[in-house]
Amino acid sequence: MTRPSTPTLDRVRTPADLRGMSDADLTRVADELRAEVISVVSETGGHLGSSLGVVELSVAIHAVFNTPVDKLIWDVGHQCYPHKILTGRRDRMRSLRQEGGLSGFTKRSESTFDPFGAAHSSTSISAALGFSVGRDMGQPTGDAIAVIGDGAITAGMAYEAMNAAGHLNKRLFVVLNDNDMSIAPPVGALNKYLNGLSSTAPFAALRGMAEGFEAALPGPLRDGARRARQLVTGMPGGGTLFEELGFTYIGPVDGHDMPVLLATLRAAKARAQGPVMIHAVTVKGKGYAPAESSADKYHGVAKFDVLSGLQAKSRSNAPAYTAVFGQTLTDEAARDGRIVGVTAAMPSGTGLDIMAQRFPGRVFDVGIAEQHGVTFAAGMAASGLKPFVAIYSTFLQRGYDQIVHDVALQGLPVRFAIDRAGLVGADGATHAGCFDVGYLASLPGFVVMAAGDEAELVDMVATAAGYDAGPISFRYPRGEGVGVAMPERGRMLEIGRGRVMREGTRVALLSFGAHLSECLLAAEALASQGVSVTVADARFAKPLDTGLIAQLARHHEAIITVEQGAVGGFGAMVLHHMANAGLLDGGVKVRTMTLPDRFIEQASPAAMYADAGLTAADIQATVLRTLGVGMIAARG
Amino acid sequence: MTRPSTPTLDRVRTPADLRGMSDADLTRVADELRAEVISVVSETGGHLGSSLGVVELSVAIHAVFNTPVDKLIWDVGHQCYPHKILTGRRDRMRSLRQEGGLSGFTKRSESTFDPFGAAHSSTSISAALGFSVGRDMGQPTGDAIAVIGDGAITAGMAYEAMNAAGHLNKRLFVVLNDNDMSIAPPVGALNKYLNGLSSTAPFAALRGMAEGFEAALPGPLRDGARRARQLVTGMPGGGTLFEELGFTYIGPVDGHDMPVLLATLRAAKARAQGPVMIHAVTVKGKGYAPAESSADKYHGVAKFDVLSGLQAKSRSNAPAYTAVFGQTLTDEAARDGRIVGVTAAMPSGTGLDIMAQRFPGRVFDVGIAEQHGVTFAAGMAASGLKPFVAIYSTFLQRGYDQIVHDVALQGLPVRFAIDRAGLVGADGATHAGCFDVGYLASLPGFVVMAAGDEAELVDMVATAAGYDAGPISFRYPRGEGVGVAMPERGRMLEIGRGRVMREGTRVALLSFGAHLSECLLAAEALASQGVSVTVADARFAKPLDTGLIAQLARHHEAIITVEQGAVGGFGAMVLHHMANAGLLDGGVKVRTMTLPDRFIEQASPAAMYADAGLTAADIQATVLRTLGVGMIAARG
Repeated sequence: MTRPSTPTLDRVRTPADLRGMSDADLTRVADELRAEVISVVSETGGHLGSSLGVVELSVAIHAVFNTPVDKLIWDVGHQCYPHKILTGRRDRMRSLRQEGGLSGFTKRSESTFDPFGAAHSSTSISAALGFSVGRDMGQPTGDAIAVIGDGAITAGMAYEAMNAAGHLNKRLFVVLNDNDMSIAPPVGALNKYLNGLSSTAPFAALRGMAEGFEAALPGPLRDGARRARQLVTGMPGGGTLFEELGFTYIGPVDGHDMPVLLATLRAAKARAQGPVMIHAVTVKGKGYAPAESSADKYHGVAKFDVLSGLQAKSRSNAPAYTAVFGQTLTDEAARDGRIVGVTAAMPSGTGLDIMAQRFPGRVFDVGIAEQHGVTFAAGMAASGLKPFVAIYSTFLQRGYDQIVHDVALQGLPVRFAIDRAGLVGADGATHAGCFDVGYLASLPGFVVMAAGDEAELVDMVATAAGYDAGPISFRYPRGEGVGVAMPERGRMLEIGRGRVMREGTRVALLSFGAHLSECLLAAEALASQGVSVTVADARFAKPLDTGLIAQLARHHEAIITVEQGAVGGFGAMVLHHMANAGLLDGGVKVRTMTLPDRFIEQASPAAMYADAGLTAADIQATVLRTLGVGMIAARG
Repeated sequence: MTRPSTPTLDRVRTPADLRGMSDADLTRVADELRAEVISVVSETGGHLGSSLGVVELSVAIHAVFNTPVDKLIWDVGHQCYPHKILTGRRDRMRSLRQEGGLSGFTKRSESTFDPFGAAHSSTSISAALGFSVGRDMGQPTGDAIAVIGDGAITAGMAYEAMNAAGHLNKRLFVVLNDNDMSIAPPVGALNKYLNGLSSTAPFAALRGMAEGFEAALPGPLRDGARRARQLVTGMPGGGTLFEELGFTYIGPVDGHDMPVLLATLRAAKARAQGPVMIHAVTVKGKGYAPAESSADKYHGVAKFDVLSGLQAKSRSNAPAYTAVFGQTLTDEAARDGRIVGVTAAMPSGTGLDIMAQRFPGRVFDVGIAEQHGVTFAAGMAASGLKPFVAIYSTFLQRGYDQIVHDVALQGLPVRFAIDRAGLVGADGATHAGCFDVGYLASLPGFVVMAAGDEAELVDMVATAAGYDAGPISFRYPRGEGVGVAMPERGRMLEIGRGRVMREGTRVALLSFGAHLSECLLAAEALASQGVSVTVADARFAKPLDTGLIAQLARHHEAIITVEQGAVGGFGAMVLHHMANAGLLDGGVKVRTMTLPDRFIEQASPAAMYADAGLTAADIQATVLRTLGVGMIAARG
């Protein structure tokens, strides 16, 4: 593959090198940087569209501000590829998102130019405000600059941060990267408002006209006209929503026009007293035709051919869990008109787009607003509907208080479809779904399930649809299923009842969730070593199948729980029960296999589970160690 | 105590009775209702100020809307006393917040007039939108009305909900109860903005003038002037912040002027198509002089004398945990200029007001914005400061994703001071702090502590101040300590090291947190029965004192863990460790005493712990049951 020619970019070792360049050279750097990003991502895959949208912003901010003393914080961080290339990581870019390689997001441990890492959205303004306070209290830090997208700024957290920044009135820069396109087209009234701002006439002309006119008006109307002008032209002092929150608003400016960007940032830097919002309009996928013309703007892509834009497709015989969920829910929705779906800016990621195609009025995309999404669903449940809230495990954390306070405490039958449970691969630790089992199973009245395979997921969707006595959740992993036969239609599972997959005599593997296949593999290997293993699929972390557990304890020398999650989850529930039922008193050996007490860095999911000590071989080794027998001399 | 004369109110059995009354009678109902609320709360204590502020709103909304078919949702719900009196619960009001009595908040299980309960803030608009969707999908529900305060509306969740409501454009009513005063004076730029709106001139006059003027303007300026008028007068179509979010904005109106309120609500009800925001200006504590003139407007009061306003004070020799924390942190802050405090609208509730008195520039009240507060603290920590985030256990749930993603994943040394851990009394299940140990101890790299008594809290504040290697938390209960001797100054505890309080031979009680005193009581009682008991104070749920646990396992017949929290917390961490270290294989009996798998209704904390099965007597009984001996024949 030929690499692009980048003579000007080649002169940039660190951002300091940008600061001696002419504006014309900076424009050249941006053009070459765009070509370099396309070249890199064609080899690695990744978040292409977002990175292409901020090429000019990346160059301009590093050229104007004194990073890393000034703290540049990229919201979400998936648009950071140009930033990484400019900040001394160019030679490692082709390891992006791979095992041992660069993270696909900003990361403190990777570079001093990443002062605050991210991957979940809408955190940047809060963090930047924290740095601003630190600077004003004498910490060695300069200006703080947050770059946040128009999708991310709709989250409540960003609003809380703007409200706080306006109140504290600290010098702080927020660049609103407005590409009118988050992962899915953004929703919400704010988005409409931003579109209105972006489409206003170039402000200089109108401003001059309005200023002259205004002076001739009588008092109250002069005030009114001044506010109107401010609303339209975005001059300081109140007018736009951001100004109401205490920001000086500048914009909208063309986020790909380097001279305008540089001038705007220089002026803002020179003059800012309090918080400043710079509204830059950008194009996601800018400068790469296949991205600009695609519906998702190449938000997240596989490796691709630069000339054609064609992405490498992975093939699999087994259906993806996400598709199984989406299709099954659509089938259930066809039978029950009360079923509705809720997604937080992830219609296709969660498979709810499948239901939305057939029942567009019954799927609600609330935007990046998990808190609202959960309580909105609770309200719908209280009205008699059957809401399915489909949110990835890691993002559901953001609706936790709402799950406790609005759903669990009121016992409302909200269904939680928890995709991306466990380790997820290239997105790394920030996207791993590690904690949901614990934080849900500790809640009174919650039913907590995990699918052992894709067929069981079908049954769990049906179970959740039919269960109306309180909150219920089911988790399933990213990626393809294991290829089991699929049922024509899901059936209601008995609540709190697991199943035995394989009967043995000496050791019981008690699996919760999609590591069931690894348990079966381990059992097979152990059988060949002469260790007879029972494999049970618990299905429920809550309520537990206490009959099954008692039986396993009675008839086996050891029980090993296996799950794709952290401590405090399924294994903990089993131990609590066994301890308090006296089942541990009799000498049965119990071990819990969970994710370890550290965050697992990005790699393939299989490699991440190997890193975590959760492969079939690890299960096998744990069994042997627990029995006190060696790998070879297992028979006996 | 004489009760007020309430002849008109006496005619109101249900809200339907209001609907046949004249406006003059409704005004009389409101006046009598105010007197009744004062009389009730003087006997029960409770949230007086907020309830007095919404007396007229309560009458007017129930008179105009068709509750309970129409769904009236009170945000937070602590202002619901007038509503409860009007909705068939008057005869039980004097049981408010007491064991077996009415809840101090709205509660679905209590009345069909409480369609969606609350106690945490800022959930009402999301829930109301859920009901609106349910109605439009054929569920048997009428209009949805959310009443939300100017403090609660600053939370990100409320903004997410407004953004969503504006987008869906469903008929929906939001009454903004603007008393310029949440528990503490509200902070943030939005608050300043609301003050601006409230002080604008009566809109009718200006509106007429502006309309006439506008017509004479040329095109672009006419648009500008129209928007200016809208901003000032609040007419539909864009202008106020709420209109930018898609609401029709009405107001501000005087929330104590019954004829104006009734007219406004009737007009809104008759005309609303999409979401409507009615901005009512109220006075917290309205109509009761001692409340109106007090700094906190009698937000939460003890029983009081109606004539003088004097509250009954409880006396205690032991200092409250909150005060111990606040004073100790202030002492540490005096020695270390990098220490800063963060509170979410609870400066006095958390004791941070003590530090703020001495170091006003180093305590940040972010308002009801736990998400922002946590990440703001993470940003400050990244800049080199030492932030202490003081948030009640139950409210910290709202910052959970930020704890995982911004603090734990980055290993930033943010200190979490978790007050109100465990059961809290009159505020009931919604305010109980049950889940924090589990949801924090499952996070890699977190240090999780609980104070066994108020002296240990002093040491834990010092430990957190001195520990800079990553996130650290310490929890402590509501109320007074146990009266132990207090150290002059806190000392650094060794991380992951517990202490033995009492040495015995047969059973070990392993306590985590403030139930240490109950463990000591139980040990004393057991000793008198001839059962020799060791009591250990674990101090750390993470990292565990594995040496201590091994020793307890080696030398005792049974180990009982005791904590003021749910399953999946400390006991689970001990069991995980013991299982995987093989410590359970030897036959030591382990039991975990946690909160039970149900929510505990309000009562005194002691009565709630009795309900939960967590008294000293329960511990004693568990020990005896575990040993298999009777209460009497324990010796042997």
